[in-house]
This record gives sequence, C-alpha cells and structure tokens, in this order.
Amino acid sequence: MATPGSGFWSFGSEDGSGDPENPGTARAWCQVAQKFTGGIGNKLCALLYGDSEKPAASSGSEPPRATSRKATCACDQKPCSCPKADVNYAFLHATDLLPASDGERPTLAFLQDVMGILLQYVVKSFDRSTKVIDFHYPNELLQEYNWELGDQPQNLEEILMHCQTTLKYAIKTGHPRYFNQLSTGLDMVGLAADWLTSTANTNMFTYEIAPVFVLLEYVTLKKMREIIGWPGGSGDGIFSPGGAISNMYAMLIARFKMFPEVKEKGMAAVPRLIAFTSEHSHFSLKKGAAALGIGTDSVILIKCDERGKMIPADLERRILEAKQKGFVPFLVSATAGTTVYGAFDPLLAVADLCKKYKIWMHVDAAWGGGLLMSRKHKWKLSGVERANSVTWNPHKMMGVPLQCSALLVREEGLMQSCNQMHASYLFQQDKHYDLSYDTGDKALQCGRHVDVFKLWLMWRAKGTTGFEAHIDKCLELAEYLYNIIKNREGYEMVFDGKPQHTNVCFWYVPPSLRVLEDNEERMSRLSKVAPVIKARMMEYGTTMVSYQPLGDKVNFFRMVISNPAATHQDIDFLIEEIERLGQDL
Amino acid sequence: MATPGSGFWSFGSEDGSGDPENPGTARAWCQVAQKFTGGIGNKLCALLYGDSEKPAASSGSEPPRATSRKATCACDQKPCSCPKADVNYAFLHATDLLPASDGERPTLAFLQDVMGILLQYVVKSFDRSTKVIDFHYPNELLQEYNWELGDQPQNLEEILMHCQTTLKYAIKTGHPRYFNQLSTGLDMVGLAADWLTSTANTNMFTYEIAPVFVLLEYVTLKKMREIIGWPGGSGDGIFSPGGAISNMYAMLIARFKMFPEVKEKGMAAVPRLIAFTSEHSHFSLKKGAAALGIGTDSVILIKCDERGKMIPADLERRILEAKQKGFVPFLVSATAGTTVYGAFDPLLAVADLCKKYKIWMHVDAAWGGGLLMSRKHKWKLSGVERANSVTWNPHKMMGVPLQCSALLVREEGLMQSCNQMHASYLFQQDKHYDLSYDTGDKALQCGRHVDVFKLWLMWRAKGTTGFEAHIDKCLELAEYLYNIIKNREGYEMVFDGKPQHTNVCFWYVPPSLRVLEDNEERMSRLSKVAPVIKARMMEYGTTMVSYQPLGDKVNFFRMVISNPAATHQDIDFLIEEIERLGQDL
Repeated sequence: MATPGSGFWSFGSEDGSGDPENPGTARAWCQVAQKFTGGIGNKLCALLYGDSEKPAASSGSEPPRATSRKATCACDQKPCSCPKADVNYAFLHATDLLPASDGERPTLAFLQDVMGILLQYVVKSFDRSTKVIDFHYPNELLQEYNWELGDQPQNLEEILMHCQTTLKYAIKTGHPRYFNQLSTGLDMVGLAADWLTSTANTNMFTYEIAPVFVLLEYVTLKKMREIIGWPGGSGDGIFSPGGAISNMYAMLIARFKMFPEVKEKGMAAVPRLIAFTSEHSHFSLKKGAAALGIGTDSVILIKCDERGKMIPADLERRILEAKQKGFVPFLVSATAGTTVYGAFDPLLAVADLCKKYKIWMHVDAAWGGGLLMSRKHKWKLSGVERANSVTWNPHKMMGVPLQCSALLVREEGLMQSCNQMHASYLFQQDKHYDLSYDTGDKALQCGRHVDVFKLWLMWRAKGTTGFEAHIDKCLELAEYLYNIIKNREGYEMVFDGKPQHTNVCFWYVPPSLRVLEDNEERMSRLSKVAPVIKARMMEYGTTMVSYQPLGDKVNFFRMVISNPAATHQDIDFLIEEIERLGQDL
Repeated sequence: MATPGSGFWSFGSEDGSGDPENPGTARAWCQVAQKFTGGIGNKLCALLYGDSEKPAASSGSEPPRATSRKATCACDQKPCSCPKADVNYAFLHATDLLPASDGERPTLAFLQDVMGILLQYVVKSFDRSTKVIDFHYPNELLQEYNWELGDQPQNLEEILMHCQTTLKYAIKTGHPRYFNQLSTGLDMVGLAADWLTSTANTNMFTYEIAPVFVLLEYVTLKKMREIIGWPGGSGDGIFSPGGAISNMYAMLIARFKMFPEVKEKGMAAVPRLIAFTSEHSHFSLKKGAAALGIGTDSVILIKCDERGKMIPADLERRILEAKQKGFVPFLVSATAGTTVYGAFDPLLAVADLCKKYKIWMHVDAAWGGGLLMSRKHKWKLSGVERANSVTWNPHKMMGVPLQCSALLVREEGLMQSCNQMHASYLFQQDKHYDLSYDTGDKALQCGRHVDVFKLWLMWRAKGTTGFEAHIDKCLELAEYLYNIIKNREGYEMVFDGKPQHTNVCFWYVPPSLRVLEDNEERMSRLSKVAPVIKARMMEYGTTMVSYQPLGDKVNFFRMVISNPAATHQDIDFLIEEIERLGQDL
C-alpha cells in the first residue's frame, strides 16, 4: 500500500497519517476496507491514499490526484501507469462505455477519473507556485507527443493520458497572473454550468429541443436590455459565437433596416453604403464589411483623441463628406471599451449625430459592457440606451467562460425579418406550442451552441451585485497599477490620466535606454523590449501580458485585468517580473 | 445513518448490505470512518451509503445519486434538501469558491456534487424506462419555476437545485429513442473532452494561448482532407460555429477567389454573381447569400429527381441561362446528404460542369460527410475529392457533441487572404514562435471556441474504424426500418427505394384514412396526422422524431438515425408507438 496522501476526495485527514496500530487512521481503515468485495475496498483506499509518490504528511490542501486510481499497483515503472484491478482501463475501450450494455460501471469510473484530472487542473490553475504556461515551440510540441489520428482505437488508459497531456501544455487562463487577453479567469459556477451544457448536448434553434435554454436566453437577454436602459427591457437579441459575429449581425441588421430589398436583390440594388467607426475600434467592423459585400473601403475610420476616444466633430465631417459624394451613411459603430486603450467613445454625442443624420447607432461594448453592472462606472456608457444595437460579451469583463457574446437589438422583429428563411423541416408552423419561442430563424447560424446557461447560472450565483463587486475590484486594481508605475523610474505611460477601463498601457524602458535621447534609434530599440520580455515571461511561465504597437506608438505593454483571482500582490509581481526580465535589455 | 445504497462511487458491494456485526460491512466500516476528523468520515460514509430513499439491497447498477451529500440529514422534508454538515451549501456562495482563500475544499465539494448531478443525468439518458422529454408548454415552464435574474446572490444549495431543475426539463438527446435531429446521441469520450475544453477555457486565435488545441486542429483538419482525397491532405480549413457558417465561408471564399477586389470594394465592384444549389439543399445557402450582399434571388435552385438528387442537366441549363444574361456563375453547392431525404447529389457530374464552366465547387456534406469514414458507403460521395471546399459536421453523423463543424478548403492560403485584417494587438509579427500557427486571422470570428478537442479525442478512442462501425450500424438500422415499413399496412413511403443515408421518409396513414380515395380531402387530413402524433409523442415523452412537408408532399415523418444508442428494438418501438398514438386519427 502506498503512503498516505491526498486522494480524489481528500479534504484533510490530519490524524490519519499512516499509523497501522491506530484504528482511526487511514491505513487501519484501509485494511478493513480490503475485506469488501467488488473492488470497492481498493476504490475507497485509493480515496484515502493518493498516488505512490506523495509525501507521508499531507496537509489536505494538495491538489487532488488524477492518478489515484493507480495507487495499488506495485510495478517497477515510475511513473506507473497501471490501472487499478477493478477498472482496468488498459483493457477498456470507448465501446465498453455507455450505451454499451454493462457500460454503466466503466462509464462512471472513466468520467470520474476525467473529473479527477480536471479538478487537479482547476486547483493548480489558482496556485501561484505553478506556471501559467509550460511553453514549448510548435515544432517541439509536435515532436514531443504523438498527436496523429489512426485507424485503430486506443484504450481508455491512453485516452486519460491524452487528457493529462493536453492540460499539461495548456495555458492556465484562470491563473492569477494570466493577464494576456480580455477574457481571463475561471469561474467555478460558470465552469459547472458549462459542464452541464455539454452534458445536455443540445442546440438552440427550437423550443422543442432546448426548452429551458431557450427560456433562459429570453430571460437573460431581456435583463441585459433592461440594464442597457431600453424601456421594459423590450427589443430583441441573440447569443452569437463571439463579438466579431455580434458586430457583423449589427451591420447586417442596420443595412436591412434601411434597405430591406438587399436580402433578395443583394448589394447591387442599393447605393453605396458607408459605415463609420473609430480608428481604435475592433477589426471586426472591417471584417464584417468585407464579408457582407460592403467592402472595407466603405468603413471610414474616425479620428480619436489622445485617449483613444472617437472625435465627434470628425465623425460629422466624414458623414457630410460621404453624403456629398452621394454615398449613404448607414451605420456608426461607437466603441465602449476599445481593445487596446480601453477607451469609451462619447456615446451621447454620437447618438445626437446618428439622430441628426438618421443613421443606425451600434455600440460595440464587447469589452466595456460589463461596466453597466457597476453603479460606480456605468456612467462611462451614458448614451448606450440610445443605441439601436449593442454588442456585449459577458465572456470578457464579466468572467463568463468562453464563449458568451450577446447582440442586443432595440427593435423587435427586425432580426427575424432580416434572417428568416422559413425552413419547413425545422420551423414547422403546425407545432403544438407557442412558436414565438422557436428563435432559430432569426440567427445566421442553423444549429447554435448553448451559450446562455453559464451566464444565467453565474448571475444567479453572484447576483448583479456580485458582478458589480468583481468589476469594481478589477478597475481598482488597474488604478493601483497605474498609480504605481506612472511616476516609477523606467516606465512611460502611453497616454496620460487614470485608466477608464482596466487597460493600462505603458512602456518599460530598460536602464540602457533611459540615457538615450528621444530619437529614432531609441524608438527602434524600445520597440524590441516588450517582445523580448514577453518571450521570456512565456519561457519562464511566470506571467503573461499582451503587447502591441498602435499607430505611431511602438510596441508597448497593454495590461488588462478581468481575472477575479488577481490581487494587489499579483500586480506587484507583474511589475517586479517585467523589471527582472527586462533589466538587461 | 441512512440505509445502505448506491452512492456516488458505488460499483457494487454485494456483501456489504448493512450488517452491523460483520466488520466487513459498509455499516461497520462507516462506524470506523466516523473516528476520522476533518469531515472525511462523513464523506466516506456518504460514498458507501446513497441517499436515504434507496432500497436496502442495491445492485450497484443504479444511477449515482446527486443528493448523496444530503444522506445524513434527518429532517422531515421529503425530498430533503438539507446539505451535509461538513459542506453546508446553504451558507456557501460563489464567493466562497476558488479563487477565494480556503476556497479549495468547498470548490472540490461543489464541483463533485455538480458532477454527481451530471452523472445521474448521463445514466438516465440511456435508460429506456425514462422519458425522452418531460414536456411543458412555454407558459407552464415560465410559471413552474422562478427563472428571473436578481441583484442578490443565491447560495450554492440553490445553484445545485437550478442544475437539477434545468436537467429535469431538458431533452435527453442521448436517449436511445431520440431521433428528432441530425445530431443525436451522447458520446462518453466526447463528453469528457468537452468538459476538458470548458476547463481549459481558452480561445483558438493564437498558438500563444491555445498551443495544443491549435496543433490538434491542424492535425485533425489535415486528416479530414486526406479522407476527402486531397493529395497529402494539403489545403486549408477551420472549425466554424455550425454548418450554416461553414457554407457561408465557402461562398465568401469562392467569391474572393474570383474577385479579390470585393474585399475592399464590395459587391458594387463586381458583376452580378450567381450561386447554384439544389431545391433540396439546406437553407443556409440562401441565408449566406442574403448576408454576403449577394441576395437570395441570385441563388438558383436546381431541380432534383424523385430521390432528391440534383439533376445535372438542369444545372447546366441554368448555368448557361445565367451566363446568357451576363451574370457570373461563381459557386455550385452540391449536397452530400440532404436534410430531409438524405440524398447525395451526383458529385462527379457536378464536378465536370464546374470544371467546364470554371465555377467553384462546394460540397455541403454537413450531414453526409460522416459516410467518408465507411469503406462500405463512401462511394456515395465519389467526386468530393474534386471539390474546392467541403462542409463536414462531425457533430452530426459522427456523434461528436455539439458544436463541431469543419470547413475544408482545397487551396491553401485563400482563407487567410480573404479574411485577414492584420490586427496588430493580436497577431504581432515579432513573436518568438512560428507565426503560421496563429490561425485566427483567417477566421470571420475573432475569439473562436475550441471545437476540435472532442473530435480529436473521440477519434483517438474509436479510431477511424470505430467511426466506420458506428456509421455502418446506423445505415443498417435505417435499412431495417425501411424493410419493415415499406410493405406494412398503414405506411406509405415518400420516395421509393432503399435509403442512401439514414433518412427514412414516410407517411403513417391511420385506419380511417386508408379507405379514402387519393384526393385533396385525404391529403388535407393526412397532413394533420404527423403533427398530432408528434405532439402526443412529446406529451408522453416516449420518443421524438421529426416531420415536415416538402414541396407538394404534405407532412411526413423523417426518421434519421445517428444515435449510437439506438437498436433494432428501438426501431420496433418507434413503429409501435406511431401506431399506438395515431391509430384513432
């Protein structure tokens, strides 16, 4: 028998550290358990004892062991990969699992063991002593493991090993020091909800096959519209596969609203349409215009002020210019929370211009929408209630697992008219229930993944106030970072002033560059600093933060905080780590 | 203490049925366990003993109990919802879970209990004695439970209850008698992989944040291209959010290939483009044309033969007609496995015409692509290797959990040129690794859900031969159904001949209609039969199968079989059930 450790279910057995004479110890108990038949004794022992490599004294705070099912093996291989006698995965295949007859036992064992691997990963994700990433170059990773697909099945032992290996090389996106993307963190309720979603394995197109999820989408979108400020939460919406698609929906609906004939006749039947968005806006506006046959040349980029906010005077100038050319302005996409600076466009001024020139007002609040949950910060989106459509990604600032992006539309029924094709095999008109719940025909997609449940369950678990607390905390951390570095030697801010969102943009200037004059050579050298520090971060695996150039500004760090696990100490760590890794450059 | 039962981990304890005098029994063992501190005794007892409602003699084949953590409660409430003493969910909230300090214990307990609920659902899904659906009308479901979102958090006991309630009303899409959609079944390895995907919670746009998943996408798409028959598996591709989007990608890329200037200039810069697809094809072709600014009028529907296959002569006639009008044919989308009839268009003849007229050949094999895995059935897709692009949804015939749809493109680099926008904050050009693995810029989406892992892991677990066996079995079951009903009293086939895919289309004619002449009145009455039987199926919850009208054919049943759990007996049951429910109509 292995030394006592922390098994799958271990929640602390402070006095059970292996004394065979004490009937209250794990070891003594295990000896009793061995008298059970049916393998349950081994199973329960494995729960008490972790794998054979555990130290004798366990604090109970160790991560659960994915390998606990192998505890009773006495082979010479280290690490041993022999399965337990009662469920020998080496002799089991996918065909032995449900729906196979007698598939229930191996299925439950297998899914439990997968769960053990996942729980181990979850616990490690939050452990600052583990790496954010165990980085390997693509060619290394391709050589290190056989990822190829073959004709013959592999046994379940191999399948469990693949799960472990996959997670070994994964980025711990929930790690307290992972700041690389707008979507960070790992919410436990959201994760549970996503597991449930996978298990329910259904599709959003009809009430018939997703009754609860369709209702929850209805309830949740209505709540989001209320928060935006549309009267009674009226309007329409959909959860789409990401903010880029949500923005594309907005463009599609705006065009249809102005020229419904475009649906049948195409762009040939309409005048040249022009969309406006800021030069700091997300690239998906141009991507959408290219896809929709509008063309990227018809997306006019409006100038921003030094903080990255759209300048309304430039917007008006460009609208007039387009009209003078005989083009038709059909959409302004204001950004609430730009990707790099976290800037909020002046929505009220934009709304006035959209009203004046009768243009569809879209707000891309993919990143900033979360601030609507905060009484302290929602003023930054003042005017969003005047938008015709809003993109809002709960998978970003609200910490919902990926993917969860909503497009909200003020006018009800427009999405349906724009996209419906009346497929009779799916949206039968003679069903026995209220067909208004068959929402599939308003989507661009046919089948649509269930993205709502994780948001709904998290909202129940946190309440609006819980999201508010999370957002206020993240913004407070960003301000903390800003206050530390704004006057610290070796740092230069990309723009002045307190961050409006959690984006903090800065250069780290290594000592060797501090003495240089502000000329081209310095810029050229400075542009190489962030990429090297980032590469080192990844190779050490200690933290991850993004960098990029923007306009005439060379590579700078863009720190964003949406991770609920991050603390002041993690911010301190980031600063120290940047200095440690960049000191010699 | 409750009576012995089948707890979360129960795999049979045949002799441990509660004798307190026998030291080898569960009860005696539990008494020993109680001496442990830290709550582990209670926990381990709960593993041995299920909840208090279990009968004394357990076979071990019972579903795991989600409520096992409540086993020690002695309250009067039935069903009791009191949590166990050591983890009292009523006093715990989301804020007590990780990343909270000391959050590890409640997190592990909570996630384990969620898993208990999920495993119970999984086991029930395969149990023919349970309902496929516990149907409620939308207004009933809205009233039966409070689904609203509020300001204040709910405790974890309530959150666990929501999970149970959500699954109570869910459709068991893995149930052996669920035949309603093209995507049915619940694969255990696929499910495990989807749980892992949720846990890894990352995004496909860069190697930086999804190294393994990006490589697996590369490996898997290459393998799929090899199976299609492109030399060395060369080409391109992407996993997209469903077949409709995959088809839209094909249309987008075909247009770009012919007129690259459309990306910047829009549809105004190009002649009128015409796409061709059969009258039985999927509505997403028209939906895509509407979105892309091509217009639905520019999608020409080609006539089909009585089996639903596109007639090549009609295709050629319509191509010539379009050219005579000065329009530009740019895409033919042939269907390999139509949605209703399961028909395969004659791909070789289509390929010849596409070659002759220099038109992009797309094959929508969303439904039929799976047959490429079968040596017996892949001839039905002969000619697919000549396509320029192929849609293939492993989430349909191959049983991969939703969503998993691939678009494969023959020419490498085209997707990238078509969609790239060079966002410098995401696709930095000075990263330290091989940038060809940053695949995000070839997508329409920015963030993209990880859809590949479940397919990859299932492929490892089954091998190509395992998918083949599944597909051959489903086709054999469809033929079995066809052979039973083709000459059975009360059935009429919608088209003659053995099914080519698993689609079997038929009318059930109740006795009262069998005596009627074949006139309009009979048609009108027949059209009402399938909707009533379907409504009754859902109210009884015994089985689910789809129906629809098509062209001049009134409502008929479309049986499809992709469910790995279905057997000959389930087919027999379906026939008996249709007759039981429709006898009196």
